[in-house]
Amino acid sequence: MTRHFQGMPTLEDFELKVEPLPNLKDGEILIKPEFWSVDPYARIYPISFGYKLPMTMLGSHVSEVLESRNPQFPVGSHVISYTGWRDVSVVDPEGHYYTYGSGPTALPKVTAAMELPEHMSRSLLLGSLGMPGVTAYWGLHDICQPQPGETLVVSGAAGAVGSLVGQLGRVAGLRVVGITGSQEKCDHLVHNLGFDAAINYRKNNVKTALRRAAPRGVDCYFDNVGGLISHAVLMNMNMHGRISVCGAITGYNDTSPILLPALQPTMVAFQLKMEGFFVWRWLHRGLWQEGLDKMKTLLEDGQIKNEETIVNGFENLPHAFIGMLQGGNVGKMIVKA
Amino acid sequence: MTRHFQGMPTLEDFELKVEPLPNLKDGEILIKPEFWSVDPYARIYPISFGYKLPMTMLGSHVSEVLESRNPQFPVGSHVISYTGWRDVSVVDPEGHYYTYGSGPTALPKVTAAMELPEHMSRSLLLGSLGMPGVTAYWGLHDICQPQPGETLVVSGAAGAVGSLVGQLGRVAGLRVVGITGSQEKCDHLVHNLGFDAAINYRKNNVKTALRRAAPRGVDCYFDNVGGLISHAVLMNMNMHGRISVCGAITGYNDTSPILLPALQPTMVAFQLKMEGFFVWRWLHRGLWQEGLDKMKTLLEDGQIKNEETIVNGFENLPHAFIGMLQGGNVGKMIVKA
Repeated sequence: MTRHFQGMPTLEDFELKVEPLPNLKDGEILIKPEFWSVDPYARIYPISFGYKLPMTMLGSHVSEVLESRNPQFPVGSHVISYTGWRDVSVVDPEGHYYTYGSGPTALPKVTAAMELPEHMSRSLLLGSLGMPGVTAYWGLHDICQPQPGETLVVSGAAGAVGSLVGQLGRVAGLRVVGITGSQEKCDHLVHNLGFDAAINYRKNNVKTALRRAAPRGVDCYFDNVGGLISHAVLMNMNMHGRISVCGAITGYNDTSPILLPALQPTMVAFQLKMEGFFVWRWLHRGLWQEGLDKMKTLLEDGQIKNEETIVNGFENLPHAFIGMLQGGNVGKMIVKA
Repeated sequence: MTRHFQGMPTLEDFELKVEPLPNLKDGEILIKPEFWSVDPYARIYPISFGYKLPMTMLGSHVSEVLESRNPQFPVGSHVISYTGWRDVSVVDPEGHYYTYGSGPTALPKVTAAMELPEHMSRSLLLGSLGMPGVTAYWGLHDICQPQPGETLVVSGAAGAVGSLVGQLGRVAGLRVVGITGSQEKCDHLVHNLGFDAAINYRKNNVKTALRRAAPRGVDCYFDNVGGLISHAVLMNMNMHGRISVCGAITGYNDTSPILLPALQPTMVAFQLKMEGFFVWRWLHRGLWQEGLDKMKTLLEDGQIKNEETIVNGFENLPHAFIGMLQGGNVGKMIVKA
């Protein structure tokens, strides 16, 4: 990444660099990605966290260990790594990518990949069996605390997290309404993923469409988008509604903040509870693995589908990233080596 | 009340009516208020709940029972009643003013007043030993869950609820910063009520003033006002900050909604939790009485002061109400018979 994004990222914000690989020191491993993940957070973190440019673009991948001077990560094993958009890299697995709170919740740069049965692609480790899966599972269950028979609305419903949240809502016995950006995606949500209804926000007034799609009102809202869409959902919440704020992607490419009617009067009038979260809060006390285990069982039982949009080739990471920000993906956007 | 408020209420929105009193039926009582309460909710409920005009203006009072055909409320006893701006009235104590959720949480129109020691004015039953007291106590403790050493910001800090919240924060070992609308009120909060700092929002940029007043950031925010002030506080919140939204008085007199930058990006970036509430949620399971008992102990121990602004005369209820909405009160605005 050679310049900070202004509005929607462009191909010119990136440059392909070739660097010699250093020799491995004790404890280090040489890894080669099989699949890269492109995620919305990478749009905002470079500025939020004040990264200096040029930098290796942020991102995670599932990689094979090609060389190893670390017995915990033998050659041929697989790892999940947060070392960004690199084709091959030498890393010290002791490093931390991100420290959330105190020690036990720090996110290691490299972790051993969960073993998968033969028929499952390791790309799942970047989707429903990885960070987006934990995001969907705990972001829904821990924050919204849904009860059977309630109504759940998900925005960004066809994306990596949204499509999982909606399916988890169905499994939990909720009426599920998805909000997404095309008729094709709406049809997919209802016909392939078992959503009860879907709203194309580009063609409908979300506030009035929700009155039909959620006739008993909205109890839980899993918010990936923010902005006007979320404002319309909030106008349809029931008393004691819960809002899990995972992201606010509609504003990520805005150069000035969106102005909206203040939320506080609605928060009081319906006694709403809204909480924003990072998925890393569930790294501790076994919750991360518990989330993954639940997702794996649901996936193996066929109760949840893992949807992917796959782009081929390391050099197409910028294309995939921009496409994801424009809503070009259904399910998880994955780049295959 | 003869016409719905447009912007700030005016004296012309009200009319003094004289009606003959009906004879008491079995179970009814005749009550005469000693003190009336004027509260911000009465600005918005007539429209929110779609009341038809003309109506008796909403409000509560502490009254003496002058005649009784109900053995539970003997002549000479005192009651808290939600029968609005009436000089004397005949009421059936079985009625409910407001039903919050199912049966046990319904708010009776009339309840027996808590017994007070000789030296305490019964006006306290409309302030720190009444609805505003419970609002402050549980709105802070149940929703913000403050921990000793944290920083609490209170907006509307010189009002009935805000002045109690700030004092409760001090008792709980928090650094307390109040936001209010004059230098005089700021001085009062710091010198008389033990706030650590106070900000006059009319003379200061709240966002930058808070950086000095809350140098370790804001952990808990008790919000009475909404709007731009709350936006500025949110920009100063710490990770995992909690926001208790009690009201949004800055917008109550606006004829069109205030537009503000969307909150969701901040909610995510600092993993904030925000909850709006009605005080009636604590009517059940003894929590109401527990809140009042705690407030009474703190008041008797001198740890909390009950501040009042007193206006004399039933006919001055509209003046008092408008004055309260304009911030003319310090502490609870009370009208004395």
